[in-house]
Amino acid sequence: MTKQERATRTRQALIRSAAVVFEQHGYAQARLTLISSGAGVSTGALHFHFENKAAVAEAVVAEASRGLRDMSAAIRRRTDTALQALVDTSHALVELLRGDPVSRAGFRLSCDGERAAAPDPRMEWHHRVRELLDEAAAAGTLADDIAREDAAAATVAVTAGFEVLGRHDTEWLSPYRLTGFWQLLLPRLAAAKTLPLLDPAGTGAVASARAPAPAVSAVGEAEETAALTAEPT
Amino acid sequence: MTKQERATRTRQALIRSAAVVFEQHGYAQARLTLISSGAGVSTGALHFHFENKAAVAEAVVAEASRGLRDMSAAIRRRTDTALQALVDTSHALVELLRGDPVSRAGFRLSCDGERAAAPDPRMEWHHRVRELLDEAAAAGTLADDIAREDAAAATVAVTAGFEVLGRHDTEWLSPYRLTGFWQLLLPRLAAAKTLPLLDPAGTGAVASARAPAPAVSAVGEAEETAALTAEPT
Repeated sequence: MTKQERATRTRQALIRSAAVVFEQHGYAQARLTLISSGAGVSTGALHFHFENKAAVAEAVVAEASRGLRDMSAAIRRRTDTALQALVDTSHALVELLRGDPVSRAGFRLSCDGERAAAPDPRMEWHHRVRELLDEAAAAGTLADDIAREDAAAATVAVTAGFEVLGRHDTEWLSPYRLTGFWQLLLPRLAAAKTLPLLDPAGTGAVASARAPAPAVSAVGEAEETAALTAEPT
Repeated sequence: MTKQERATRTRQALIRSAAVVFEQHGYAQARLTLISSGAGVSTGALHFHFENKAAVAEAVVAEASRGLRDMSAAIRRRTDTALQALVDTSHALVELLRGDPVSRAGFRLSCDGERAAAPDPRMEWHHRVRELLDEAAAAGTLADDIAREDAAAATVAVTAGFEVLGRHDTEWLSPYRLTGFWQLLLPRLAAAKTLPLLDPAGTGAVASARAPAPAVSAVGEAEETAALTAEPT
């Protein structure tokens, strides 16, 4: 492994550990020593990568946005219609919120008013939903009388609602909840000829867009020491 | 004013002040001295009414639930159909989230995982939405192929989403956002003969169900002193 690869792994381990700590303790109460020990590195290593807690949080938010963007692009390449891509992307997003602490913390940090970060995953999601609806309208697969911004806002609000309700009761993040929403909305949203082609439960594109699990959870001390002595030059 | 009336006013002022302080500082960081001074009373007066911070928060949550329940019942009495009552109640709820700190803090406390209170306003709302949909189904005003629990979950999730997104950007709590949602959903939800009778923007029942503004904001020191010396017997 090169020095660069080690540094990247350490940075990813710190982002993941920070996400877990932010989720457990909240941003205000999160301590940097907990974040570094959760990543299996020293606080010195943390400070090599991040100036302060705000910088770690910004990295978590940016990583959540990046994950959402990559996942959404991969799904669009694998689906026939923009509306199915919208359904599949929403299912993949809810799956991320269920299983990926970085996505969960990224969305929560961007909503709880604790800090305003540039690449907000909620705005990323809103933008993507609107893009897919515009694409569907251009392709004639959207029903004629749909106000696209209303449909985008409803989709964004429903997923935000599932996320916030899912903090207490994970049933809100079950696939069947979202499937129920699309069963309700798709007959209104889709053009008559397109509706029979759509699967409200999502297609295989959701599964194949799953990002491989990050290879990092804790970085060995030996590697970290090497990275620390080598990187700052 | 009787002693009982004074005590009630002080309690309401403390609940309102606590809601504002929880909103500004978060539950974990909220200090009791800020809550009592915001109500214009001493910390002794606060401790006469509430054992600790958790008890104040529970009172905020209970008050938000009560407000929602009373508002919803008043609206149902003034609307013809259960579906219009559902639309009107959702508009009144978003109006409460926009303008009433107690409702806002009650919903936020019940969702942020900081404490679990018995009379949760979110569960209250979910229950009420489901009741109105059941009533609509019984009256034949709901479309035949609607899964009521899906429709209830979508409505609850959308309003939860508007609330959480509205923390950063109050435009999400604008009436037109919710009107857009109902314009999208009602043609799917309502029986064909009922749809023309429904107003997605809400009817006059919303306005007439507005609770009068609480008469309390700060209680005069003289009254408070009287209450303090008189109540603990």
